[in-house]
Order: sequence, then C-alpha cells, then structure tokens
Amino acid sequence: MSAPVIVPVIMSGGAGTRLWPLSRRAKPKQMHALFGEKSLLQETLNRVPSDAGFAAPIVICAEAHVTDIHQQLRAIGVTAAHIIAEPVPRNTAPCAAVAAHAVAAQFGPDALVLLLAADHFVADPIAFRATIITGAKSAKGGHIVTFGPKPTRPETGYGYLLAGADIGNGAFKLDKFVEKPNMATAKSWLADGRYLWNAGIFLFRADVMLAQIHELRPAIAHAAKLAWQQALHEADHILLERSAFAACPAQSVDTAVMESTQLGAVIPLDVGWSDVGSWPSIYELSAKDTHENACAGPVITIDSHNCLVRSDGLRIAVVGMDEVAVIATDAAVLVMPFSQAQKVREVVEQLDESER
Amino acid sequence: MSAPVIVPVIMSGGAGTRLWPLSRRAKPKQMHALFGEKSLLQETLNRVPSDAGFAAPIVICAEAHVTDIHQQLRAIGVTAAHIIAEPVPRNTAPCAAVAAHAVAAQFGPDALVLLLAADHFVADPIAFRATIITGAKSAKGGHIVTFGPKPTRPETGYGYLLAGADIGNGAFKLDKFVEKPNMATAKSWLADGRYLWNAGIFLFRADVMLAQIHELRPAIAHAAKLAWQQALHEADHILLERSAFAACPAQSVDTAVMESTQLGAVIPLDVGWSDVGSWPSIYELSAKDTHENACAGPVITIDSHNCLVRSDGLRIAVVGMDEVAVIATDAAVLVMPFSQAQKVREVVEQLDESER
Repeated sequence: MSAPVIVPVIMSGGAGTRLWPLSRRAKPKQMHALFGEKSLLQETLNRVPSDAGFAAPIVICAEAHVTDIHQQLRAIGVTAAHIIAEPVPRNTAPCAAVAAHAVAAQFGPDALVLLLAADHFVADPIAFRATIITGAKSAKGGHIVTFGPKPTRPETGYGYLLAGADIGNGAFKLDKFVEKPNMATAKSWLADGRYLWNAGIFLFRADVMLAQIHELRPAIAHAAKLAWQQALHEADHILLERSAFAACPAQSVDTAVMESTQLGAVIPLDVGWSDVGSWPSIYELSAKDTHENACAGPVITIDSHNCLVRSDGLRIAVVGMDEVAVIATDAAVLVMPFSQAQKVREVVEQLDESER
Repeated sequence: MSAPVIVPVIMSGGAGTRLWPLSRRAKPKQMHALFGEKSLLQETLNRVPSDAGFAAPIVICAEAHVTDIHQQLRAIGVTAAHIIAEPVPRNTAPCAAVAAHAVAAQFGPDALVLLLAADHFVADPIAFRATIITGAKSAKGGHIVTFGPKPTRPETGYGYLLAGADIGNGAFKLDKFVEKPNMATAKSWLADGRYLWNAGIFLFRADVMLAQIHELRPAIAHAAKLAWQQALHEADHILLERSAFAACPAQSVDTAVMESTQLGAVIPLDVGWSDVGSWPSIYELSAKDTHENACAGPVITIDSHNCLVRSDGLRIAVVGMDEVAVIATDAAVLVMPFSQAQKVREVVEQLDESER
C-alpha cells in the first residue's frame, strides 16, 4: 500500500491571553517569534514539510489575520498552502469538520487530516514526524488518533488521556479523556504511567471525523457543512459563510467528539512538547545566561537570577529580581513572579473592562 | 530698615541619574512633574514668588535646556525671570559666584542671594518662606546662612550640619560641615539633636560670597568673574563665556566655601523637605491607594502592595510585587526593589558604556 496522503491542518484561531502583553487579538501568540527567528506558526509549518511527505498545509485562522498569515507563509517559502478564514471563532470541533470537508474535497474522503495547534513547541521535529507517520496506519484503519506527550511533571494545567489496551501499530485504545486534575491527582497519574497529556493533536480520515461529528454533534456537522459549501472563494483564501458558521455551536474536538467516540486511539509522544502556555513555560524553553536569566532584546540585569526579561524595543533594566517575568512591548509592560503567572488572565480581564 | 532684596537663584544643572529612566540628560529630574501637575522646577519657583516679596528669580541651567526652561517658566506665569546658561557644568561654587555677580549688578552688592536647588521637595512652602525671611537678618549682617532640615530618620545619604552657639535671629553658628555618615553615626547624630541635614540651601549677601570665594578659591573667583563679564547677552538668556567657564574648577559651595569659611550660620528648617533623590523617596512623598501602592499613569496592580508604579504612557501591569518600583518612559523600563535603589547608578553606567 502506498503512503497515505496526510494533510496538515494548522488551527491558528487562538488569542493566547496568557501571554499578554506580547499576545494580543491583533497579533496572537502563534504569530510571534518566541524562540529564535521564526514564529510558532512558522515552526509548526516547518515541522510537517512537503519534503517529508506531507501534503500542502491548510491554515485555519481568523479573517482579520489572513494577510499576516500569508506573509508568514511566504517568508518561509510555503506557497502552496490554503488558508481558510473563520468569520467568527467557534472553537476546534467546527474547525475539524471544515478541515475534513476541505481535505475530502481535494484528496478524497479517505485522506488523512493532521489537526495541529499553531502555537505549540516541539523540541524534536524528526521524532515528531516519525510518531505521526506511525499513527497513520491506525488512522487509515478508522481510528481517530491522538498523540499524548508523556508527563514529565505533575502538571495541573493540562487535560490527560488514559491509554488502554494495545491495539497495535504503536497505538493504544483511548480509554478516557480527562479534565485538568488537582495536584494530588496529577502526582498519582505521573506515577501511574498510563496517563498522557492531551496536546490537542489529532490524526483521522476525513470521512471518519465527518461521520462521528454527524452522529455525536449533528448541529455542528450541519452548520460546518453549510459554512463550507457556501464559502466565498477569494483570491488568496476561502472565507467560510458567515451566518452558517456564526450559527455553529462552539465546542472543542475534545468535548464534541473525543469524550464520546468509540474510535479513539492514543500514541505516546516523546518529542519535547510544550503548549507554551505561560511565561514560565517560555522561560523553561529559552536559552539562559550565566545567572540563569533568559533575556531577549535590549535588556540589562543586575543582581537578578532565574528571570525572563523580554523587550520588543524598549530598554529594560531589572535589578534584584528572582523568578520574575518582565515583558515589554511597544504598548505595555508586565511585571510578575513566575509563581503568579495564571493571574495574567486577571490583567487581561481588567483591561477588557476598562476598554468597554 | 526696609526689607532686604532677596533674589532666588535656582540651580537647574543636575542630571539626576538616580531617577533613571525618568531623569535623563535631555530632560533631568527637575523638569518632570513628580507630584501633581507642576515640575519640581516650577514648584521651586512657586515657593519664592514675587507676591511674597522675593525679587524676580534667576535660573542657572545647561545651555541645552534654555528653551525648555523658558517654556516651564511661561507655563506658571513667571515672565520676569533671568536665565543664565552654563556652557559646561561646573558644580555649584561657580554658580554661587556667577549668581552673586548677577545680583550685585542688578540690585547692588548688599542684595541677598537665595541659592536653591531646582529639584527638591518642600511640603510646607509657607513655613519655608518664613524660615528664609528669618535668615535674612543674619545674611544682611554678613553671615552665609544655610538652612538645615531636622533629621527625621538616620539618613546615610545626606551630608550633615553641626549647629553650634546661638547667634541670635533664629540662627546658630555653623560649627561643622560633615560628609555622609555610616548608619551607626547617623543614628547617634539623630539622637544628638544638634545635627541637621545639609539641604544645599544658602542665603548670603552678594559681596560677602564674592569676597569669600576670592579669599578661599581664587581660581574659581577669577574664572567665574571672567565668564560673567564676557557673557553673551542673548534675547532670552545670558550665556556665560565658554572658555573662561570651562577653565573654572568644578567644586561645590560646600567644599569650596562652607567647609572653610568663618561666616557660616545655620537655621533649622522644619518644612517637610526632601531632596527627592531616589525612587523610594518619591514613593514616600506620593499619594497611596488602599494597597499602599503609589501609581501614576495607566497602571494595573494585582496582589501588589507598597509599590511605586509610574508610566509616561505605556500600560503597566504589576502582579504580586511588594516594595518594588516599576518605572516606564517612552524609552525604557526600570524594575527594582526599593532596597536596591542605589543600584540605578550601575544601570546608568552600563548604559553609558554600551553607548560608547
């Protein structure tokens, strides 16, 4: 049997408020270069290149970001990509349905969709690709395959996947899709060994996903199909039909499909994955100086250790700080200890309120 | 006897590096509004107004600041002031000599000069004026009168004045001019009661100061006289003659005159004085919110207490901080605990080096 077509579908719809002030609606997290020269979106695309056998990618994004996304694609020489624009955000289940329609239309109903977030980090892209290819057999056979990074710490910020019976081809039955645990539970799951992180990476046949959504969430299936069929085909992107897509229930693939489906499979992923979901996680992934500070931009640190200091252009001087993030853009500055990183949400909420 | 002429001479030559990033050479500390609407320079001028009997003020400043100073004077309706520009900074003793020449030329040799820094804070300007007027008798009688705030804490950042015998008119003989003490000494002086802070405020007859400088520092007397006599009288300021002033030794009034003169007198000052010499001192003088944070500009604080957060325009969010200063201008951001405020100098030194 010839290698199956795998179409990477990059979901670039997130707003990434946990990385305020860098990540904003106008330029969310995935469009920023957090490590080196390339944005997270560009790194994600480079992870699934055509010369490794992947089909030309599809990027699904907010209508407002089409131009910027095109520019980012051109900058890394990805010219054959398709861009599908969402007139409103509707979470990932409608995305998955639209992706399946798009891939089926181009490559036939049994082509594979690799659904990826645009804003994650992978340390080892070669191992990443190898694991995805491993999953292709199970997906071809009718499973909805998800890929679960092996926990390296008792993380309470992620959902978990419980791997069940070995079903061959490196995959396990997906026994349970579970919400974020408390610390005690997270510790027991880390020790248990069968629990994997939910990284939101899915590989499935277009027709399998469409059938599952149709069965489990008919309203989503209906709205997504209509939005796709009546989409506007512009010169450089496809715009989903506004009123149909707006009428679509907003749900995640996890909730809409994975928690209920009998077709779930999971493959452990050991590739140095991170969702880059907070400033401390960016600190962990960044290069450090001799004082264990991770600095980017015109930054001076004095008597400071274990800090993340990033500037888009403003000079920053940080004196006498430990385990603190100082992030400056041309519009705002955040100063926050790593231990309180979850409170960025409160900042963004207060800002939203003050703008109203 | 009629009330003597008192000419306020405001020395506005300081660069104020301890308040980086707000205070920079292009716009030093005295030209910023730190408390409310008016700059420290404007507050200083308002403290010695003509309707309280003071003559039109003289402002001595760097050549580069003449235009900005004019603007600040106009903004508070001070139109009769004279501006004397220094082609190079030469500390305060040459300033005192030039001030004496300027005042003698306009009002005669026995007119009084009130030498003030442009960048200090006074909580009670009425009491300030009353104390100055009290000193006029001693100054008229030939003393060089300085005014010493009563210590309120064991401050190691100021020099001290030792008050000796009562010489009448509210004044004491100035027994000693002393450098910044260590903490143990500062504590003993606070308990002693005869030690006052050196606030750099002087009241003297023009001819007395000129004679003293001539006797004690003839090189300064000579250079300052030449720079004054050959000054360029421009439309809106007097520019001291460049080469003569450049040849003048740079010394403070304290070192050049006060440490040696037999004419020193001191009057205790109880007016809520501060030299506004550091970010923590600005915190102390600022209005606080219910969490004891002093905020200026578009600032959000979450779980933070006892902080100073100031922004010229950038949005700042400070999370989980205590006794920390966060200062943002359009060019730079400083994050620093109050306890390490003296290290701002290191920041400025590193910046100067990186600019070379």
